[in-house]
Amino acid sequence: MAIRTPRLFQAAALWLPCLLIFVLFITFTCASQPRKPRLSVLGGHNKDRNGVHRPSLIASDSNNDYQTFYYDQTLDHFNYQPISYTTFQQRYVVNFKHWRGARVGAPIFAYMGEEASIDDDVGHIGFMPENSRKFGALELYIEHRYYGKSMPHGFTGDESLENATIRGYFNSAQAIADYAEVIIDLKKNLSADSSPVIVVGGSYGGTLAAWFRLKYPHIAMGALASSSPLLYFDGLVPPNSYDVVVTKDFQEVSWSCYDTIKRSWPEIDRVAAKPNGLSELSKKFKTCKPMKAASELKDYLEYIYSVVAQYDTPPDYPVTIVCKGIDEGANGTDILGRIFSGVVAYHGESRKCYDLNVFSSTDKPTSWDWQTCSDLVTPIGRGNETIFPASPFVYQDYKDYCMKSFGVEPKPHWATTYFGGQHIKRVLHESGSNIIFSNGLRDPYSSGGVLEDISDNILAVSTKKGSHCLDILGTRADDPEWLTAQRKKEVKIIRRWLRKYYNDLHRFA
Amino acid sequence: MAIRTPRLFQAAALWLPCLLIFVLFITFTCASQPRKPRLSVLGGHNKDRNGVHRPSLIASDSNNDYQTFYYDQTLDHFNYQPISYTTFQQRYVVNFKHWRGARVGAPIFAYMGEEASIDDDVGHIGFMPENSRKFGALELYIEHRYYGKSMPHGFTGDESLENATIRGYFNSAQAIADYAEVIIDLKKNLSADSSPVIVVGGSYGGTLAAWFRLKYPHIAMGALASSSPLLYFDGLVPPNSYDVVVTKDFQEVSWSCYDTIKRSWPEIDRVAAKPNGLSELSKKFKTCKPMKAASELKDYLEYIYSVVAQYDTPPDYPVTIVCKGIDEGANGTDILGRIFSGVVAYHGESRKCYDLNVFSSTDKPTSWDWQTCSDLVTPIGRGNETIFPASPFVYQDYKDYCMKSFGVEPKPHWATTYFGGQHIKRVLHESGSNIIFSNGLRDPYSSGGVLEDISDNILAVSTKKGSHCLDILGTRADDPEWLTAQRKKEVKIIRRWLRKYYNDLHRFA
Repeated sequence: MAIRTPRLFQAAALWLPCLLIFVLFITFTCASQPRKPRLSVLGGHNKDRNGVHRPSLIASDSNNDYQTFYYDQTLDHFNYQPISYTTFQQRYVVNFKHWRGARVGAPIFAYMGEEASIDDDVGHIGFMPENSRKFGALELYIEHRYYGKSMPHGFTGDESLENATIRGYFNSAQAIADYAEVIIDLKKNLSADSSPVIVVGGSYGGTLAAWFRLKYPHIAMGALASSSPLLYFDGLVPPNSYDVVVTKDFQEVSWSCYDTIKRSWPEIDRVAAKPNGLSELSKKFKTCKPMKAASELKDYLEYIYSVVAQYDTPPDYPVTIVCKGIDEGANGTDILGRIFSGVVAYHGESRKCYDLNVFSSTDKPTSWDWQTCSDLVTPIGRGNETIFPASPFVYQDYKDYCMKSFGVEPKPHWATTYFGGQHIKRVLHESGSNIIFSNGLRDPYSSGGVLEDISDNILAVSTKKGSHCLDILGTRADDPEWLTAQRKKEVKIIRRWLRKYYNDLHRFA
Repeated sequence: MAIRTPRLFQAAALWLPCLLIFVLFITFTCASQPRKPRLSVLGGHNKDRNGVHRPSLIASDSNNDYQTFYYDQTLDHFNYQPISYTTFQQRYVVNFKHWRGARVGAPIFAYMGEEASIDDDVGHIGFMPENSRKFGALELYIEHRYYGKSMPHGFTGDESLENATIRGYFNSAQAIADYAEVIIDLKKNLSADSSPVIVVGGSYGGTLAAWFRLKYPHIAMGALASSSPLLYFDGLVPPNSYDVVVTKDFQEVSWSCYDTIKRSWPEIDRVAAKPNGLSELSKKFKTCKPMKAASELKDYLEYIYSVVAQYDTPPDYPVTIVCKGIDEGANGTDILGRIFSGVVAYHGESRKCYDLNVFSSTDKPTSWDWQTCSDLVTPIGRGNETIFPASPFVYQDYKDYCMKSFGVEPKPHWATTYFGGQHIKRVLHESGSNIIFSNGLRDPYSSGGVLEDISDNILAVSTKKGSHCLDILGTRADDPEWLTAQRKKEVKIIRRWLRKYYNDLHRFA
């Protein structure tokens, strides 16, 4: 039987195709346990997708309009050892239905797969079909190496992670080189040399889209990078940036709610420290299994507050729902009673018991763990001044975890060395073009994003009330005006890029 | 005893630090022998450098002003296998003498080492010390991996080439990633975050400079790419481009000289085909060893005509010298007598005998062979309409040679996939900035260069009479006016970039 998905997860699930990324340091506050990087919030979500209602494909595009292909992809683009030439089958999906064709140089919208199977994206990233139709564009989705069906030959996901040789090739520089090859090959096969390519992505995929435009401007004419936290590297933003936004989200909705949450952490510790304290907490929070440490509860609550802030989407606005639960305190007006009421409100129903284990049930490192332990080191910690208990980022712990899990040291400076990020306004002002950085400012990841226009064609399109990747998901009848306006603005910018592109095509012919 | 270097080699040697690059297909016209890629002309030159007079360091900079450092460089930037973390000592040389310092954000001129030891560059790329003084800049030279003293740990150059694992890391994407790391590290050590970096390079090094600016704009604020044939890939220019310029050079100097050369190839074949024909040719050309095939002579002559065209430098203008020899025919006025007179003129003296073996004396593949057999595939062939005998580019032969030499296939499309080049005017107009492409139009490699302004800050600075890398070499009292003007123009552009940079520094502070 499919797991029944809680109501708020259903709301959140609307946004799931645009995957949440980056390691959050969820602290094991039990001092005897080491702090270690954990799954991203969405990594956790992945496990709960069974039975989730998903937005359907837009009316006129059936599954049959999406054709799956495989590209014989080079394992290592940057090496010339015999093994580097090994290839694997990389999956990509094309919808030709709306494409006006190569003859008129009709555009190609290329979705840069993120850290998930592309099955989660095709038909679900509403921006793609909706605008492909509008622009007469070809719709292309490329799966990220080592996810979904794009595995190195003969390996499953787990096997490729366990093999120290094979996992070495699993990183973002190789991934965008894959995208370059697939796009060039497809354009060649379609004789579509003059078709401009706009790359689109969300979250980590948004960062890949922006990076792709910067590294391969000869292949992508422009990029829409939705909710891309491309400044979450190498100390470009303070380590508590994510939590500062979560804090602001809660404060804006209800100061008393924020205050209750803020005061709940020492209260949990106080109760846990009592004789039979953990048993009291287990009872209070109706946990399915007796708690072994207060950290289990705190991780669970931190997870809930993070998810609702990140996916604080209309029309429900999960932060409001959770805060309503906390403020009304239907399950008791003491601090922990209010917090539990928030949990119930989050799930949208009163349950027999609550399973605190929102993360992977095994301790096996995940694909995303590998990525954050190699090139995508995200120094995210928690500061005292946020809604969460303090838990600073300690690189040594991070490194130790990575060494233990994978036997190699992470490279914390590589992302900024290869992709940049330092002085981004100045640098992109004089050397970049044609990128839209879209963000919802309620999304905690927006704190690692570009939120101001950099130049005439590197533009920030933010909405005050928006959440993670909201703009690139499918339109709904009840979308608020500000969301519709954000999408319109993006389309207008892309239209302007295209106009200039076609002019240039003649000018430089 | 040092080998006595011929006069024209001495002239050419002035330009040697700026290395000639890319494989030329020097055909073995003896049909029974396969065509195979050979050393670049300058690869050949390298062997003849002993005892060559070199321009001295500029008056005020002694060798003591140049300090050598080593950076602990990552073997593989794009992989996270344990072996990728292996490091090697990469050499770089710094002259702090003229630097106005980090406090004022004084610039850094970074020379991108090409396919040679950096010993050939330090103090010899006149542009560097002359302009460092002018701009109060720091002078930095970084050696290319697998050349000079920048060898993977424990390997000699030969060993690193013989080892299929180690040579795999030897390519241009890795090389410019090295440069990125060295520059970032140096700036960090000097607390010179606000110092702008201008990268400079010539020939292959010029291409690396341009590519570096395109791939790492967050590290290099601008690039001077001298004589960069960055369009010599993947069919972006016709395969006979190089020879078309050689042909033009000779035609412009003397049509009769061109005509004599053009007619000499069938004449050589005719004589060679006679009984004792090779012996007759050997005698006629005073070869040190009896010729075994007419191709030896033809390779030798093709080499001479290529070198003099490429390095047709003032005040001597070697093409003029060779053509004078041919036209005057002091050693006989028949075709072959004239050609031999050209050879004597080239060497600047009458010799007891002439050694036809201008290439490597062994058949061992060189480092440059490896580079052109992996990522830098240059499809250069010879067309009928040039001064040379026809010898079209045949990829299959190229590939066979590479497979035989190194066991792996070259990747002819990789350079354009990773670095671009297609529709370069349109693409760089809308996505690039701050590159000077300087060329001398007598340099055959200029045929693969950017010869027109692309935008306000991607500029072509060409001279009609200039030769390979001439602009970045040291000024001389007898420099012609057009050369001085070219350099002045470059300096003016760089000055403008710097002005804008410092303005932006305040603007985006």
